[in-house]
Amino acid sequence: MGSNIVEKILKEHLVIGEMNRGSEIGIRIDQTLTQDSTGTMAYLQFEALGVDKVKTKKSVAYIDHNMLQTGPENADDHKYIQTVAKKHGIYFSKPGNGICHQVHLERVGVPGQTLVGSDSHTPTGGGIGMLAIGAGGLDVAVAMGGGEYYIKCPEVVKVNLTGRLNPWVTAKDIILELLRRLSVKGGVNKVFEYAGEGVKTLSVPERATITNMGAELGATTSIFPSDEVTRAFLKAQNREENFVELKADEDAEYDQIVEINLSELEPLVACPHSPDNVVKVSELKGVKVDQVTIGSCTNSSYVDMMKVAGILEGHTVHEDVSLVIGPGSKQVLNMIAENGALSKMIASGARIIESGCGPCIGMGQSPANNAVSLRTINRNFEGRCGTVSAGVYLVSPEIAAVSALKGYITDPREFGKGVEVKMPEKFLINDNLIAKPAENGEDVEVVRGPNIKPFPKAEELKDTVMGKVLIKVEDNITTDHIMPSNAKLLPFRSNIPYLSEYCLTPCNPEFPKRANENDGGFILGGENYGQGSSREHAALVPLYLGIKAVFAKSFARIHMANLINNGIMPLVFENSNDYDDIDEFDDIVINDAISSIETGKFVIENKTKEKSYSMKLEVSERQKDMIIKGGLINSIKNK
Amino acid sequence: MGSNIVEKILKEHLVIGEMNRGSEIGIRIDQTLTQDSTGTMAYLQFEALGVDKVKTKKSVAYIDHNMLQTGPENADDHKYIQTVAKKHGIYFSKPGNGICHQVHLERVGVPGQTLVGSDSHTPTGGGIGMLAIGAGGLDVAVAMGGGEYYIKCPEVVKVNLTGRLNPWVTAKDIILELLRRLSVKGGVNKVFEYAGEGVKTLSVPERATITNMGAELGATTSIFPSDEVTRAFLKAQNREENFVELKADEDAEYDQIVEINLSELEPLVACPHSPDNVVKVSELKGVKVDQVTIGSCTNSSYVDMMKVAGILEGHTVHEDVSLVIGPGSKQVLNMIAENGALSKMIASGARIIESGCGPCIGMGQSPANNAVSLRTINRNFEGRCGTVSAGVYLVSPEIAAVSALKGYITDPREFGKGVEVKMPEKFLINDNLIAKPAENGEDVEVVRGPNIKPFPKAEELKDTVMGKVLIKVEDNITTDHIMPSNAKLLPFRSNIPYLSEYCLTPCNPEFPKRANENDGGFILGGENYGQGSSREHAALVPLYLGIKAVFAKSFARIHMANLINNGIMPLVFENSNDYDDIDEFDDIVINDAISSIETGKFVIENKTKEKSYSMKLEVSERQKDMIIKGGLINSIKNK
Repeated sequence: MGSNIVEKILKEHLVIGEMNRGSEIGIRIDQTLTQDSTGTMAYLQFEALGVDKVKTKKSVAYIDHNMLQTGPENADDHKYIQTVAKKHGIYFSKPGNGICHQVHLERVGVPGQTLVGSDSHTPTGGGIGMLAIGAGGLDVAVAMGGGEYYIKCPEVVKVNLTGRLNPWVTAKDIILELLRRLSVKGGVNKVFEYAGEGVKTLSVPERATITNMGAELGATTSIFPSDEVTRAFLKAQNREENFVELKADEDAEYDQIVEINLSELEPLVACPHSPDNVVKVSELKGVKVDQVTIGSCTNSSYVDMMKVAGILEGHTVHEDVSLVIGPGSKQVLNMIAENGALSKMIASGARIIESGCGPCIGMGQSPANNAVSLRTINRNFEGRCGTVSAGVYLVSPEIAAVSALKGYITDPREFGKGVEVKMPEKFLINDNLIAKPAENGEDVEVVRGPNIKPFPKAEELKDTVMGKVLIKVEDNITTDHIMPSNAKLLPFRSNIPYLSEYCLTPCNPEFPKRANENDGGFILGGENYGQGSSREHAALVPLYLGIKAVFAKSFARIHMANLINNGIMPLVFENSNDYDDIDEFDDIVINDAISSIETGKFVIENKTKEKSYSMKLEVSERQKDMIIKGGLINSIKNK
Repeated sequence: MGSNIVEKILKEHLVIGEMNRGSEIGIRIDQTLTQDSTGTMAYLQFEALGVDKVKTKKSVAYIDHNMLQTGPENADDHKYIQTVAKKHGIYFSKPGNGICHQVHLERVGVPGQTLVGSDSHTPTGGGIGMLAIGAGGLDVAVAMGGGEYYIKCPEVVKVNLTGRLNPWVTAKDIILELLRRLSVKGGVNKVFEYAGEGVKTLSVPERATITNMGAELGATTSIFPSDEVTRAFLKAQNREENFVELKADEDAEYDQIVEINLSELEPLVACPHSPDNVVKVSELKGVKVDQVTIGSCTNSSYVDMMKVAGILEGHTVHEDVSLVIGPGSKQVLNMIAENGALSKMIASGARIIESGCGPCIGMGQSPANNAVSLRTINRNFEGRCGTVSAGVYLVSPEIAAVSALKGYITDPREFGKGVEVKMPEKFLINDNLIAKPAENGEDVEVVRGPNIKPFPKAEELKDTVMGKVLIKVEDNITTDHIMPSNAKLLPFRSNIPYLSEYCLTPCNPEFPKRANENDGGFILGGENYGQGSSREHAALVPLYLGIKAVFAKSFARIHMANLINNGIMPLVFENSNDYDDIDEFDDIVINDAISSIETGKFVIENKTKEKSYSMKLEVSERQKDMIIKGGLINSIKNK
């Protein structure tokens, strides 16, 4: 029996375990990336491991989240990351060099290699055939130290692409179509492997748009074959030597097959407040638009920008619209500054912002109250843009640009014929914003600003765990709910005590107070608890507040791993209906916690309701050990 | 006897009073400008006046301060300003169009006309021969409504320029030299009129750099003649029809003459934390630099940017430096995007930020703790950059760019020969980010976000005024001390109750609490109290907190007017030594306040110390009336 691409890469990197669906495997990691909002913590954890120099083939620390610098915290953190990177063999991508995923794709990623990154959109690297997985900062720290990275051996979904996109239909519409069909829970524990005749019609940036937003399916990652299109991209990036061909065997098997005929797709829009709330653009025709933002790690490539410039050329942004454009990297920005495209954007009235995550994470460019904001980003969770009352619609750059001119949501097919942009044969190569690590790390002094506080460490599990249910939340709670990530809080990502005052406050402003008053307790969640970004802070902050376990109907993959890494039990109801039975402030007791961890079978007692519920802990032996010992760092240190 | 330029313009615009030095005159205002941080309040006040349509020749509302949009407040305020402007005959310069003073110079200002602007750097317009004065928002609101603008008939200082600048010596160095000689108090109640053979060697943007930073001298304004250089500038802006020649009569008289031989100047630097703390760049050689910012209303013109691009071309910014560049207007940005200069900046590793006030007001790009930040801005007050522990050095773009490459403060003369940049014969004209007012304002609905709160209104003066001295502060307290203006507070400029929690907190964090607990009281200040920006909030917020009078050795001009406009008495010690006698919490009584206002002679009683002090109120009859009636709005309404 032949292998698919995912299996080939996993086999080649397998260190621990066997490749049976659902069982945990440990794989060797070739590359890591961090961004700055998760990176400060990841490097504090890396330092706690006591490793002198990273053991990976290449590790890069990017600055792309905290770039507004509305106080000293950001620049202090940049300095910490720059110096800790220099000391320990890590490349440092300075602020201004661009968004981690875009730069990594352009300048670092290698087909067939493994990448873990402390950002949920790390799967962008699947666009050039990397097995690229988003993880918590601690997992990335361990990988930098040479440790394996653990995942459940995933199911592999073949997405068979046939046909060819019509004008004005884009890669964004392919992934929106998948989200429409499969929902934000459709990809849990799955890897999406793209195949079929349609693949070769898609450029690397188009592929990367799709693998990037595969994260919104809840998928472990997504991957494209590495083919002649990939080779041409790497060649144009002056690194053809990194090219490796990657394709599935003819007789490869898959766990599931999804068919998409590209020719049948139409321009789509994800409506507020979920990326899977997808409709045809024609259904929203005439909705008045207040703001349009183009950019983010999803749609900020050279080709995206050139198309936008082509649409804007000679026109003026509608008087009532604020159009904001953030090119994805210095390479992109420099190329469009060089060839005149940027000038066309400016002439049309677009506001050009720095290359960074910016609007996508509410780090600036928050719209007005009740505004309609069209964005080419990947997530439109309520309030993520910084304005709770605003409605964010996810669209292709083409829909965004055309609508910015018209002042209302517009089907771009009305605009005339599409803008043709060819992939360049040569990108502008200039890595002068990437600082190399020191030859001799010993000489480098790590600079720590006053905002960097020690991170909380879990303790050994006790056999009886008691507490109150401090909060009961609905399905699809995101890490944005658990640890809000707005412009005011992001600068404090290295300051857990400060952040704890905001934990779960979008669900209930009383939560931190309740946790403090009750010395911690439990969280009760619904389906897909912890979806969204990879931020480990959504586990570190509950740990700091004394949360001992989260009970839920199901968990999002990265968040569940982060909870375990930090010694918090993620318990799943055997019977989902039991969720309805439990109320806030119910007194819960977990007896025999340690032996229950070992069997994976829990009976938790609700003292208030005088009932008990069966729950399960579906984790590996390694993870069981971690929970018992009090998290990953304790577990490693005990070895 | 002939007239100087200032006298000519004043005479032509005189409506009330006589032109005797020191006596109050009311002048007709041709143009107004507002920016957004003072503008929301100015338009609320304009609305309170009940005028349908502005009576000026041209009024423009700019958005340049609050552009980060880290929450809905900024975009809400933009919408309010956009709609209120459209309704009342005001042009609206959208975010992205640039910094008010730069855009006004390029596209709006007219030699020989009068301009008041709710920003202390309004004198920039003096670069094309406008009599351009910074004022509080309420004064601007009154001017929009057709009312006169009142100033003390100023002394006129002739600054006689001879010789010619050597390579690498710039307009910035001329104004730094003046600051070095005259100090930040040297210009109070004076207008600086530039003259001499050196004038014609300076381009309009160079002249504007000088008149802009004349504000740092405490001057009422500064002005250059309007000559062939001015004509060429206006012609290149496609508005030669606005040109009027302006020159002093041969036998014009001046109150003071300052001689500057341009040939003798060297590159200068203003050290932390005052613009008059000026030394030669050579004295700072080798100081390690962490951050460099280029831009702001002082040095962001096309020529400035071209020189910077010329220096950066082919080089890389030092690894340990963050270089940030913000071109001054869309016109500048578009031109350098079009001609390749922007591309050179990007290639060197510069971070390009939006055209706006940004770093100058701590609205982003705050440096790390204890950092050295070289900036081409006009003010380096402690903490203004957003980082209290940082040291900000004011320099020319040339010193900034060269030092960014070297990593330490560098005398640019070491860099080789200067970069020659010619003024363009044709600027790129495209006003599509300036929205015209409605033909019929009645149809326009003004949109008010939830952040817009009513502003406090003063009450009629009582004859006995009592209270405690709530705070005693040193000389040269700035409006940044009185009403801090950082990235976190600026979005709340239309919300006085919220701002009041931060009033004078840089001097004493207890001040707002003390004011609340004591139902208001008095402020005790030293020399030049209230220097710096024009913000009326430095009066509105004390009014809200119940401040009845400020006792000081002397006041800065705009702040004093703002206090009076809001019904707060600015009393000056007859004997400065009495300042030493008064302590915080002393109980003060002002008896016979109303008759004292009329005579201008006060005796205030210090109950605690059992002493009394003579104080004076040096204001016009009009201002006396305002204080008695409870501020400008009450005074106008009573008419």
